[in-house]
Amino acid sequence: MVIEDILEGLKKKIEKNLPAGTTISNVEFEGPQLVVYTEEPRKFADNGNIVRTLAKNLRTRIVVRPDPKVLLAPEESIELINQTVPEDSGVTNYDFAPDVGEVIIEAEKPGLVIGKHGETLREITKKVGWTPKVVRTPPIKSRTVKNIREFMKKNHSDRKDILKTIGRKIHRECTSKDQWVRLTSLGGCREVGRSCFLLSTPESKIMIDCGVNVGSDDDMTPYLYIPEVQPLNQIDAVVITHAHLDHQGLVPLLYKYGYDGPIYCTHPTRDMMVLLELDFIDVAAKDGKRVPYESADVRNALKHSIVLEYEEVTDIAPDIKLTFHNAGHIIGSAVSHFHIGDGLHNVVITGDFKFGPSRLFNPAVNKFPRVETVITESTYGASNSMQPALKDAEKNLQRIIKETIDRQGVVLIPAFAVGRSQEVMIVIEEAIRKGIIDEVPVYLDGMIWEATAIHATYPEYLNNDLRRLIFQKGQNPFLSECFKPVDSNELRRNIIENPHPCVILSTSGMMSGGPIMEYFKAFAPNERNTLVFVGYQADGTMGRRIQKGWKEIPLSSGGKGSETVRMNMDVEIVDGFSGHSDRRQLMEYFKRMKPQPERVFTEHGDERSCIDLASSIHKRKKIETRALTNLETIRLV
Amino acid sequence: MVIEDILEGLKKKIEKNLPAGTTISNVEFEGPQLVVYTEEPRKFADNGNIVRTLAKNLRTRIVVRPDPKVLLAPEESIELINQTVPEDSGVTNYDFAPDVGEVIIEAEKPGLVIGKHGETLREITKKVGWTPKVVRTPPIKSRTVKNIREFMKKNHSDRKDILKTIGRKIHRECTSKDQWVRLTSLGGCREVGRSCFLLSTPESKIMIDCGVNVGSDDDMTPYLYIPEVQPLNQIDAVVITHAHLDHQGLVPLLYKYGYDGPIYCTHPTRDMMVLLELDFIDVAAKDGKRVPYESADVRNALKHSIVLEYEEVTDIAPDIKLTFHNAGHIIGSAVSHFHIGDGLHNVVITGDFKFGPSRLFNPAVNKFPRVETVITESTYGASNSMQPALKDAEKNLQRIIKETIDRQGVVLIPAFAVGRSQEVMIVIEEAIRKGIIDEVPVYLDGMIWEATAIHATYPEYLNNDLRRLIFQKGQNPFLSECFKPVDSNELRRNIIENPHPCVILSTSGMMSGGPIMEYFKAFAPNERNTLVFVGYQADGTMGRRIQKGWKEIPLSSGGKGSETVRMNMDVEIVDGFSGHSDRRQLMEYFKRMKPQPERVFTEHGDERSCIDLASSIHKRKKIETRALTNLETIRLV
Repeated sequence: MVIEDILEGLKKKIEKNLPAGTTISNVEFEGPQLVVYTEEPRKFADNGNIVRTLAKNLRTRIVVRPDPKVLLAPEESIELINQTVPEDSGVTNYDFAPDVGEVIIEAEKPGLVIGKHGETLREITKKVGWTPKVVRTPPIKSRTVKNIREFMKKNHSDRKDILKTIGRKIHRECTSKDQWVRLTSLGGCREVGRSCFLLSTPESKIMIDCGVNVGSDDDMTPYLYIPEVQPLNQIDAVVITHAHLDHQGLVPLLYKYGYDGPIYCTHPTRDMMVLLELDFIDVAAKDGKRVPYESADVRNALKHSIVLEYEEVTDIAPDIKLTFHNAGHIIGSAVSHFHIGDGLHNVVITGDFKFGPSRLFNPAVNKFPRVETVITESTYGASNSMQPALKDAEKNLQRIIKETIDRQGVVLIPAFAVGRSQEVMIVIEEAIRKGIIDEVPVYLDGMIWEATAIHATYPEYLNNDLRRLIFQKGQNPFLSECFKPVDSNELRRNIIENPHPCVILSTSGMMSGGPIMEYFKAFAPNERNTLVFVGYQADGTMGRRIQKGWKEIPLSSGGKGSETVRMNMDVEIVDGFSGHSDRRQLMEYFKRMKPQPERVFTEHGDERSCIDLASSIHKRKKIETRALTNLETIRLV
Repeated sequence: MVIEDILEGLKKKIEKNLPAGTTISNVEFEGPQLVVYTEEPRKFADNGNIVRTLAKNLRTRIVVRPDPKVLLAPEESIELINQTVPEDSGVTNYDFAPDVGEVIIEAEKPGLVIGKHGETLREITKKVGWTPKVVRTPPIKSRTVKNIREFMKKNHSDRKDILKTIGRKIHRECTSKDQWVRLTSLGGCREVGRSCFLLSTPESKIMIDCGVNVGSDDDMTPYLYIPEVQPLNQIDAVVITHAHLDHQGLVPLLYKYGYDGPIYCTHPTRDMMVLLELDFIDVAAKDGKRVPYESADVRNALKHSIVLEYEEVTDIAPDIKLTFHNAGHIIGSAVSHFHIGDGLHNVVITGDFKFGPSRLFNPAVNKFPRVETVITESTYGASNSMQPALKDAEKNLQRIIKETIDRQGVVLIPAFAVGRSQEVMIVIEEAIRKGIIDEVPVYLDGMIWEATAIHATYPEYLNNDLRRLIFQKGQNPFLSECFKPVDSNELRRNIIENPHPCVILSTSGMMSGGPIMEYFKAFAPNERNTLVFVGYQADGTMGRRIQKGWKEIPLSSGGKGSETVRMNMDVEIVDGFSGHSDRRQLMEYFKRMKPQPERVFTEHGDERSCIDLASSIHKRKKIETRALTNLETIRLV
């Protein structure tokens, strides 16, 4: 059946399902959803159940679009919308997109614009005809969020074409008589870095993650040249579990090599991805290296991104439905559930996940409607990979800061921009708010502030406690006055030249470059100061050398040869802030998983950890387990 | 490096290695071998060591060709050759191919034309300039062998082009920095039928077998559509382990779908393949079915075939060398050894094999220079799959025949054309020769006589005892006067209408059609006659029904409805003639394998047999084993 016939069939089905007197003018696919065009958007808005019932009957996502001729003029519409939404919604901008009949409302409190079960939104449609879409006004100005929103607006018409093409591909008819499911490991097995999988059926091919191994020149990229993924334009979809470079750093390369399909990810993952990719290009250029793609490829990828909410079931191929669930690792990170065929098989790919308490996120989800096969990360999969409790780590950090501040010292914390920094920020903010440590400035340098701004833009992705703090108590910790972004060279120089008791969080996390080095050079010689490691320091990095006790640190000084820094400051290591589940949490995750899977494959860990975890789960649960290797294609069904 | 530079380099190396005063005019690849053109073929022939030393130094197969201008006229050459070869060589034909400077000498005793270590051949070259190639005059007229030889002669120039293209592809430069070896199972795992594997490295792709599952419409073909094998024209070589349809029946389809590379197999496999493929098309047409290719595709495949001898190490890709070893299953069947990279890995694919005594073949080879991974057949891999000893089976068969003949009855034996029939023929011939049973005619109907003719053409592939009988005693059992091919409808009618004590061997082996049915209809009602099963009868076949004891057999009578045959004849089952290793022989094969492999994968057997064998080998040898499944790609290195 050609796609036009499929659409015609759907139109007839919809018409039969509509209340008497309601008409539609056209239907078309747009990415994973079916768009229903009508000259009577008000009738649809009148009855919130129509769309829900349709979606249920047709088993697909449906959106209703007004026919352009029934739209009120923008000025008039703004007036009516202002009358409809509560005054304290804090609407900061309106954008009208006549081609899709949408008005994008940017508001400080999007929830109030949406209303209970979307009541207010429907009210707006009834009044103005336009379909309202709500986005949050970033409470901290984020260059990234602003640029992305402008870019998407500017490319609206391109995107409409892209989504139509994608939509028609997703909803094509299944043609194969065979039924099978295969999984190909292209990277990230028995190693960390360049995570990349391909899930395939006779009908479709889905790539999950496409990371870069920044630590290795030889094994930098996944095995993208093997036949299972070639040619790239035959891949139906790319799914990104979270924004760290080892899971998504080569997505733009896919477009350079001919892929032109969608990227599915959560909203924060999309924004964070762009931020980290552009930074990846920047940092490489500064090191005299080259990333194998350009910023134009990053933009092209962005143009093809489709954001999904957690728990939203979405058709991404004729025979595959994707659902994201919270993974608790970094903002927007997702445990990805694939429902294949009509109940043929269910695969969960955990991505990186935290099944335990964290300041930022709820624990990873491990309840699914069905699951037969799980692919799990194994970073701390070895039997001895236990992490201290978060509470102890926090107390430890607070004590170290307090002691340093008390002796008028500077606390220097090298940290990754995304995840760890925000976790530590919240701990420090609470300690200051509760008076455990003095009210000292907490400087944020490198990409940390920008990453924090993205966190503040998407509080829905944070955990229950934090959301309550932000929404009900109006206490967004990221907005605390103690945080001072270092947004100019002057400020940085000032901090260095006028030492005062403070905390400095700065990238890079392993002291392999970035602004942290300038602070280090300045503060290392003074024994009043403290250097605190809150994350893993890999072999060969400066951070590891310092942990080993080096006292004379040779540093290159910007092309002017090298100088030696005398290391007198205190060095402290605070374990327990990991965004990964430790061994016990990994085992708990599977112990409490519902339903119980039939088999578990391990990846994303060194060889020993992957094998150890696979063998432990097998012993405990008596199910099939195995540590995957790169370059194999296993059959799941 | 482009191929011209590689050739230029080889030419220089060769010139440096030649004795002073010997010159060459050109070098070119032709399939796996390097052809050296010279105006002085006599000098090369003078010194048998030149070529051997060159081949050793260059690590490749070398053939020397005379420049056309130094060739004697054919008539003159024939005269000189006749003077050179011993009189009792029985030369029956000469064919001159000026484009390659070859004279093909067809002789009844090829060994005498070749001479000790090829002495006589060199003598011929010295006298006439032409390079002699010797083929055996088929002692039994074989339509297949004759047609193939004529076809190859007619297409000589096409073939030259094909071999040049293949040769240049084989000897291209390796370019990948990665090193890995993968094996994809496309069919024949946990099942029998449609055997097909793909061995791949970053440089090359080799398909091993491409069988058809004649018993199933749904699962008839291997999974040829999956990306690992697509597009087919990127495959470097197809290797065929033996001629049974479940290992080669879809080779012509590969050409129809775009493959245009070589097929490597032994000489008898090539001829038997053509016979069985054309018969496959015929039989299907008679059943109103269709084979997915035409006889033109069979011919195209034949044009691309390259025959190899056992134990001959051959480059089939830039990084893969193939060596065939005797497998003892049917004539020309080969255990295939792949040496990958420069010592990176060695894979043995057993194909079907018999590691035990047989009338026709030596036991399968299990000694290799190196071997890490073995893929083994598992037909009788289950713990309880023991077969009676061959000696007992033979005695049993002789007794049954004797008793039937003694009571003036007819012995009817349904048998597969290739392998089982010839085994049984030898047993009967010996019994008659030794006077154990009377001198009765042994009628051979269906394809049996043609298949026997191919056996007689290639006695080098038979076992030591049989070769001694044929070559030293001049007693080729296949030429015995007791065998009467049923080569006309008249003769068949005559046998049926004038019943007399005799043995009839006829296809099909499971009584699912073919001439056996006519004999059965005629002889079933008479209790003097005996029906002897010497092979496995699958569920659902007529043979199985009779084994179960059906007494009233409904038979379709050529479009005129059905008739019922009253079953009064004796039914006997004689186990022990299998061309497969039984369970004990399989285990012995691995027990005595040298060197010991690191891992063994099982295939070609029902699920239970494959799993049982894998688990038993693991328990016995403490090495990695697994029953492969179709559609997986495993990584070997």
